[in-house]
Amino acid sequence: MDAQHEAERSAAALYERDRASQQLGIRIVEVKPGQARVTMKVTADMVNGHEVCHGGYVFTLADSAFAFSCNTYNKSTVAAAASIDFLAPVRAGDELTATASEQWRSRRTGLYEVTVTNQHGERVALFRGRSHQLDGSVTD
Amino acid sequence: MDAQHEAERSAAALYERDRASQQLGIRIVEVKPGQARVTMKVTADMVNGHEVCHGGYVFTLADSAFAFSCNTYNKSTVAAAASIDFLAPVRAGDELTATASEQWRSRRTGLYEVTVTNQHGERVALFRGRSHQLDGSVTD
Amino acid sequence: MDAQHEAERSAAALYERDRASQQLGIRIVEVKPGQARVTMKVTADMVNGHEVCHGGYVFTLADSAFAFSCNTYNKSTVAAAASIDFLAPVRAGDELTATASEQWRSRRTGLYEVTVTNQHGERVALFRGRSHQLDGSVTD
Amino acid sequence: MDAQHEAERSAAALYERDRASQQLGIRIVEVKPGQARVTMKVTADMVNGHEVCHGGYVFTLADSAFAFSCNTYNKSTVAAAASIDFLAPVRAGDELTATASEQWRSRRTGLYEVTVTNQHGERVALFRGRSHQLDGSVTD
Repeated sequence: MDAQHEAERSAAALYERDRASQQLGIRIVEVKPGQARVTMKVTADMVNGHEVCHGGYVFTLADSAFAFSCNTYNKSTVAAAASIDFLAPVRAGDELTATASEQWRSRRTGLYEVTVTNQHGERVALFRGRSHQLDGSVTD
Repeated sequence: MDAQHEAERSAAALYERDRASQQLGIRIVEVKPGQARVTMKVTADMVNGHEVCHGGYVFTLADSAFAFSCNTYNKSTVAAAASIDFLAPVRAGDELTATASEQWRSRRTGLYEVTVTNQHGERVALFRGRSHQLDGSVTD
Repeated sequence: MDAQHEAERSAAALYERDRASQQLGIRIVEVKPGQARVTMKVTADMVNGHEVCHGGYVFTLADSAFAFSCNTYNKSTVAAAASIDFLAPVRAGDELTATASEQWRSRRTGLYEVTVTNQHGERVALFRGRSHQLDGSVTD
Repeated sequence: MDAQHEAERSAAALYERDRASQQLGIRIVEVKPGQARVTMKVTADMVNGHEVCHGGYVFTLADSAFAFSCNTYNKSTVAAAASIDFLAPVRAGDELTATASEQWRSRRTGLYEVTVTNQHGERVALFRGRSHQLDGSVTD
């Protein structure tokens, strides 16, 4: 099976079990080996005490993009650590896109960068994730 | 007004507007100046494709603890950046507690550490947040 | 004065006072607005107890690249925070290049990514820095 | 051999080969299992273009403390990643102390926090390091 087919099949299998991403309306727009792009619409229930989107939901979208990108090799892979910089406020009604891209990968560890943009193409957050590969495959 | 009263009043005002924390069942257990402890029960809707709690929800809980702790001085304060290390898997049904503690604070910037534990007292994540103080107060 | 001229002039003024970079043999190869490339040869005195280059020197090179890039607007700017991922061991005799590139900049804060490569073009570290702009200019 | 003896023996073996720490005048004040305290005097050669201590040297001191603390079990262990927040300027002549403390350790990975203070007891930086254990022992 070629790499692109495997990436798509892994992402589909992961998404099918991922109730969190489904419930949040996160959708996969595109996957390639080591890459993924996902979208989410910010709802009124995602707003925090400062009346902007809770940073946790921006992180969650980025983390989903990271998860789909680092599992494209059909090796079960989880997040070991992540960091996020919040660049601009996000509001209810905004349509966010998170684009994850592999920066580096060794035997068990990988580094992924995720850029989160809004519907105007403005960057609202930068995320970096460190992955850890487990035993077992995604599609099992 | 004394510092403890102000901390409680700020947290209550912030929580009242924080639909995200409310919808997730996050509850404030305790606040002190520069500190906050919050809890959340992990639901089946928070589970990801690896059948453990989506890291985004663990982050969100920690981020809420961070928000309540850094707003205890009644100065409107937001997250500029955060990092998280995931130490152990979290499962549906787990009861998580996030405890935030101020490490340092200057005029506009603060650093807060948050430890997330499960119902067995095991640490499942360590979080560090950098805050940025805006103009305006929380209770306005 | 155009932006490129200002970038070069700021970097030159900063470097002239930067005894640390000078003593370590760090040289500026190129600067553009928001960007800088610097090099350093790893000496036997930079080796740690595992007989590879001390991570502190890899960080220092990246941090110098970051400093030169974020000061290219002739506004005195310092590091507020930084993170580094070490990808591959560095040895005495290696010739390292650090390339810094601005990812985002607001009024007082900026984010810069730095890639450190060795003489074979292999990436040995990824660095991200958060800058904070002070009052005053670099060339004063 | 008891844990304290092993910690001291590992640190001594590591330090003996660590030309970088030696050349910088870094000295080990104390080691315990998972912990280390080191000191360094900031020299005129460590000053950067803003006429304060180059952040790279503050990082290097913290990184040495981290290295000595995570190698106290006599298992060869290196830094995988680290982050640092700079809290206050450091000047030539300052005497810095870095105190590293293990936060968490699994089979191959550990997390360590390091606080750097000056001679007045003021905190000048907070550092967090992620360790990765290799095969082999420190004292071999």
